[in-house]
Amino acid sequence: MRSRISVQDVEDCAVGGAILGTGGGGDPYVGKLMAQRAIEEYGEPEMIPLKEVPDNKIVMIAAGIGAPTVLVEKILRGDEAVTVFKALQNYLGKKAFAVMSAEVGGVNGTIPIAVAARLKIPVVDADCMGRAFPEVQLVIPNLYGVSATPLIIADEKGNSVIMSTISNEWTESISRAIASKMGGMALMALYTMDGKTAKRATLPDMLSFTMEIGRTLRDARHQKLDILKELLKVTHGIRLFKGKIVDLDRRTDKGHVRGEVIIQGSDDFGGQTLKMQFQNENLIARSGDKILATVPDLITVVDQDTCFPITTEGLKYGLRVTVIGMPCHKKWRTPAGIALAGPHHFGYDVPYTPIAATGGTRRAHAASSGN
Amino acid sequence: MRSRISVQDVEDCAVGGAILGTGGGGDPYVGKLMAQRAIEEYGEPEMIPLKEVPDNKIVMIAAGIGAPTVLVEKILRGDEAVTVFKALQNYLGKKAFAVMSAEVGGVNGTIPIAVAARLKIPVVDADCMGRAFPEVQLVIPNLYGVSATPLIIADEKGNSVIMSTISNEWTESISRAIASKMGGMALMALYTMDGKTAKRATLPDMLSFTMEIGRTLRDARHQKLDILKELLKVTHGIRLFKGKIVDLDRRTDKGHVRGEVIIQGSDDFGGQTLKMQFQNENLIARSGDKILATVPDLITVVDQDTCFPITTEGLKYGLRVTVIGMPCHKKWRTPAGIALAGPHHFGYDVPYTPIAATGGTRRAHAASSGN
Repeated sequence: MRSRISVQDVEDCAVGGAILGTGGGGDPYVGKLMAQRAIEEYGEPEMIPLKEVPDNKIVMIAAGIGAPTVLVEKILRGDEAVTVFKALQNYLGKKAFAVMSAEVGGVNGTIPIAVAARLKIPVVDADCMGRAFPEVQLVIPNLYGVSATPLIIADEKGNSVIMSTISNEWTESISRAIASKMGGMALMALYTMDGKTAKRATLPDMLSFTMEIGRTLRDARHQKLDILKELLKVTHGIRLFKGKIVDLDRRTDKGHVRGEVIIQGSDDFGGQTLKMQFQNENLIARSGDKILATVPDLITVVDQDTCFPITTEGLKYGLRVTVIGMPCHKKWRTPAGIALAGPHHFGYDVPYTPIAATGGTRRAHAASSGN
Repeated sequence: MRSRISVQDVEDCAVGGAILGTGGGGDPYVGKLMAQRAIEEYGEPEMIPLKEVPDNKIVMIAAGIGAPTVLVEKILRGDEAVTVFKALQNYLGKKAFAVMSAEVGGVNGTIPIAVAARLKIPVVDADCMGRAFPEVQLVIPNLYGVSATPLIIADEKGNSVIMSTISNEWTESISRAIASKMGGMALMALYTMDGKTAKRATLPDMLSFTMEIGRTLRDARHQKLDILKELLKVTHGIRLFKGKIVDLDRRTDKGHVRGEVIIQGSDDFGGQTLKMQFQNENLIARSGDKILATVPDLITVVDQDTCFPITTEGLKYGLRVTVIGMPCHKKWRTPAGIALAGPHHFGYDVPYTPIAATGGTRRAHAASSGN
């Protein structure tokens, strides 16, 4: 279903993106502001279902790369993502039919909305992860042989780079180094796909799903419903644990936040302990010897009372939290998907352990994006 | 005077390049092999005087970037520099009339000869430094507002990047990071100039001068002449010091060789001590409180007997050496030149102290390149 994206939708998208960000993905705050300002200036962009992208037209991804904390400190005019997007169009000699998100989890969920509003092109209701990941190659299109390049990466100062590589792993390595030199954060246009490819190689309905999560939380708060219950329902998630943070080992290494958090159980988890490893995103949750959940399934820590998501940077001693697990998209659950982005990729000698979903796999029910 | 570059000329160019490399610039060995192989396969390329480049035609620089020690270990097919050069031509939609060297000191003196032979275009008898420097922006064209970009940087694996920046300092920063990720060493095409600009903003006769140095040393050895005397004559250099290396503090930091060497004087320098700082290249030579020479003038350490140049990586305890100083090109001796590449740029609180030349400034007599 086609629809228009309102300022409120962007708000919901940012909240939903923080849930799907599994602790990382960057604070959606700046992306939200960029998108909302663009909508106020240029009008509400159209969101179209993936299936409505014509097979022979191209879609392009607009995204940020680098340490999202830096983004908050950088003074962006708001049109930088558009400049990069246009530069890729010029390089290819083709106009994009629509813009798409690389990852709905975090800041990269809302940046494409800003681009869509400013360029008056649709944003596709889809993404390439259904969550957040910290590397350029950790996307579903990579499983289908789609190249991230030609990729353009640029900063707000006017430096820009066009990249062509032999693999998406090389793209990650080189573009990460460039983003670091550009001041820690840069903007990219990448993963150009024709509609036919995008329909196979990306995840439909993810943008509206992200908004639906935010809207559900908002409604539950207004209507004084059981917020956690509503959250688990909309995400097909389960409660993995409940307790208090009693230990935290966190370090920032080359722009990545890495560490381990220990949560002492309370209520029906009394006497148990959850140990969780994270690298920007939450990756492995264990209780004793039992693995409760692993990447690429989604593990998100939320405040016990408000269900506001807590990033890995926001974890702190004494917080009372609920840890929820949400099933990843089934395309991640293939052998190729697990090889690309499972626990081994992040250096853990732990098998992928799918969590049980509460209502079938996520996106069994395609959500309408309506408003 | 137009001439052809023979395999022997390349040999001489590599030797002269090591003298002008002032301890850095990379071992010319690999560049020499690339050029000699290209000549054997494709014939002798033409070397043309700078003044013969038509005002409205373009010249482009071909160069390596990164740690030259890595280059020796990388298996190059020999055509990588050509691929990069052609890619820049394609990007610009223009053919280069000729190829030019960024720096005659070291490996980048001979790489353009390989490109010229393979593409059957002339190599210009000129360069952008008249010596070696470790950063992309430390070139005479930078003093004339010439941009290094659009620049293409690529590795031998097939990864390539086109860069456009707001300053040559940014180009240095970003391309250095890319070269590091590409395995420590990469190839570039950059500093596109029309003939009119190149005539103002580059240093004529530098390639033939480099060959002349090599040829002079070769002749002096064959004819059993006083090698040092011949070397000083051809380079308009002076002997700064003679002695034995008695202390060496050298470390490799981010691909750069940094440190200090102490040389105990012998013969007419008996009782004196030379202290010299280097960062890839030799930068400052002091005897007691007296500054004998500073960058951008050229300071080269040679073997006492053979006059073979010794790189900063080749310095070792006990070596008996002669240190020579050679005046840099007069364009470096301007306030802008000294600001760009004088002692302060390298972090030394030392004024530029021009050395006295033995026969006027270098290149007072333009050397023929003959063979």
